[in-house]
Amino acid sequence: MIKTKIDAYSLLKKIRQEKPIVHHLTNWVTIYDCANIVKVLGASPVMAHAKEEAAQMANIASSLVLNIGTLTPEFVEAMKIAARSANKKGIPVILDVCGAGATRLRDEKSFELLNEVRIDIIKGNASEIVRLSGENIRTKGVDSSEVEQDMLAVTGWLSNRFKAVVVATGKHDIVNGKGKSYIIKNGHPIMTHVVGTGCMAASVIGTFAAVSKDLVCATVSALACFEIAAELAVKKSKGPASFKEKLFDCIFDLDDKAINKMQKIYL
Amino acid sequence: MIKTKIDAYSLLKKIRQEKPIVHHLTNWVTIYDCANIVKVLGASPVMAHAKEEAAQMANIASSLVLNIGTLTPEFVEAMKIAARSANKKGIPVILDVCGAGATRLRDEKSFELLNEVRIDIIKGNASEIVRLSGENIRTKGVDSSEVEQDMLAVTGWLSNRFKAVVVATGKHDIVNGKGKSYIIKNGHPIMTHVVGTGCMAASVIGTFAAVSKDLVCATVSALACFEIAAELAVKKSKGPASFKEKLFDCIFDLDDKAINKMQKIYL
Amino acid sequence: MIKTKIDAYSLLKKIRQEKPIVHHLTNWVTIYDCANIVKVLGASPVMAHAKEEAAQMANIASSLVLNIGTLTPEFVEAMKIAARSANKKGIPVILDVCGAGATRLRDEKSFELLNEVRIDIIKGNASEIVRLSGENIRTKGVDSSEVEQDMLAVTGWLSNRFKAVVVATGKHDIVNGKGKSYIIKNGHPIMTHVVGTGCMAASVIGTFAAVSKDLVCATVSALACFEIAAELAVKKSKGPASFKEKLFDCIFDLDDKAINKMQKIYL
Repeated sequence: MIKTKIDAYSLLKKIRQEKPIVHHLTNWVTIYDCANIVKVLGASPVMAHAKEEAAQMANIASSLVLNIGTLTPEFVEAMKIAARSANKKGIPVILDVCGAGATRLRDEKSFELLNEVRIDIIKGNASEIVRLSGENIRTKGVDSSEVEQDMLAVTGWLSNRFKAVVVATGKHDIVNGKGKSYIIKNGHPIMTHVVGTGCMAASVIGTFAAVSKDLVCATVSALACFEIAAELAVKKSKGPASFKEKLFDCIFDLDDKAINKMQKIYL
Repeated sequence: MIKTKIDAYSLLKKIRQEKPIVHHLTNWVTIYDCANIVKVLGASPVMAHAKEEAAQMANIASSLVLNIGTLTPEFVEAMKIAARSANKKGIPVILDVCGAGATRLRDEKSFELLNEVRIDIIKGNASEIVRLSGENIRTKGVDSSEVEQDMLAVTGWLSNRFKAVVVATGKHDIVNGKGKSYIIKNGHPIMTHVVGTGCMAASVIGTFAAVSKDLVCATVSALACFEIAAELAVKKSKGPASFKEKLFDCIFDLDDKAINKMQKIYL
Repeated sequence: MIKTKIDAYSLLKKIRQEKPIVHHLTNWVTIYDCANIVKVLGASPVMAHAKEEAAQMANIASSLVLNIGTLTPEFVEAMKIAARSANKKGIPVILDVCGAGATRLRDEKSFELLNEVRIDIIKGNASEIVRLSGENIRTKGVDSSEVEQDMLAVTGWLSNRFKAVVVATGKHDIVNGKGKSYIIKNGHPIMTHVVGTGCMAASVIGTFAAVSKDLVCATVSALACFEIAAELAVKKSKGPASFKEKLFDCIFDLDDKAINKMQKIYL
């Protein structure tokens, strides 16, 4: 594995200049945090789920983030309407398969979305992503380097199957797309003690994807920036809740110096 | 323009004494912040959107706040039920036309609400308020003093058209009602970097309107108090997220001394 | 009244070891805080309200928390589906009768839930709990010791009527179950100035109930731990909003020493 030099800051700068609109159909638990993380990045979040306006809203946006965290069948129909509009406009669609594997409904609706509309970036934690790959990839990892190998295989298979960038978050994040795979080693364990960091990661990816045609690079840059901010935030915090507050402040203040010095992206 | 002496504190004091119930049908993004801002003002927030209870809940409240941020047609029907109940009881109804102009649905539903029920206070940012005025008022402003003149004209026209107090928030806030117009020059630019300050402003207006028959005075006082608290909060904060936390604490602590010294209300 | 020695910490320790899944169908106002309080306790929150998955999700959980704060009739149907699944699996169901008494809908739906599914723990503030007891118990309290006597009678009657543990929160919390009653005297008045502390208390009870067969002990331990954390948090806070942040951090850090020293549980 070799450390690679992706200019993660350049896209953050572009977000702050272009202030793209990032349309969400997301869950009711972390909806505020998803909107707010987009805002502190310098972009413009819009949350709109009515099927009567989902298409029009997607059409004024620069990317679309879907998250099935508190899905219902009706809500997924609105997601499809928004996604078709996004597909037509040619803006990237990010799907967070939040909770895939927990119930039949989540599995079925994840596959419905993947099969009926074009999803450009699929994002989940390791177990959610493994679930999507079904029986097609045998995972056998026990120790962390084996798990990493497994996740490289799983995301690679999924990326090929759905012609999408695939992200599996975890201690290290795996990004696979267009035959290339990256491992991002930024971040901090405290992120797992706060509800919403996974959902926010999807919104950050959606925001970076709004300003770049290269979705692999956008995804890798997004995760690196988000997690570098987390590393900075944890130093100023006294627990999970104060960490979350500092995380937003640190994203707002994130600069090229910190990113260039701290980013750990491996090829 | 002359600085005018409205006793903004006197209504805040009344809120803390009377603890009015402020009923909301609002959006899912900032619903917690809207409830919590009412709470730290000393009043009692109630969020209830089922059409089966919206009328009865409005009937035990002292004001009603409607916000179309994450509207659906069904949700707007519940808003109408609540508003009719509020109209019948004679309590003020505040409408935040959040996102008006972004989609047809938002425009149509804003006008449906304005035409089918009595709205006492219409609130939006400058572009949302301009949208409501349609082609009826030509805005031509480029520099900020021209924009201010435009917004005075737009809010005046709308106020007359809908027999309502009209608020356009922005760098400076314009309040127009009963033939009088005010400009509130409190606040801080950091408010634009946090999701929810606009929605919270509507809830603050709703809370002040709950304790005063003079809705122009209530609206002006509400905005001044909210934004003075923001000015105090920004001094203690290190970014948008810590600002938001301090904002709640500063509203809870807001006293006559700070308000009287800091308020910038112009006629 | 005598101070009693319940080992509240032992259940908290068990939560951190077993990391139980706590399934919620709750309100849209405090849904994030309910999820996050479960998370900082060391457990795993799941919020899922689609009737298509509510049963299956309850079946993989260790307890189920229902909260009618922003109920609709459809939402209550999903609650019943989840509760029947929980009943069948034998995991405890907690019902927070949030807002009971405010509207007919809330009263009717509270009783529907109590009559149609098995509720193991009923939780409300004093006025909500009194409402559930209807005309069956005459309350006459004026001063606080009389109110306490009233609430002991009301919770005792309800506990017997519904064969459930009954919790009435307030300055002091009353817990009544299996013929035994407890008074918890921890906590701090600032909790009443923050939206969501009541909802969070129900989620904390649900989390403790997930790791113990003795639901009376779980409920008493949950309230003591939550409110001891509040006492610790208030010392580090400068107002209601900073208090809430510290509350999460203090729960995350809560240890046996603080609990054993501070808990005030009376028989």
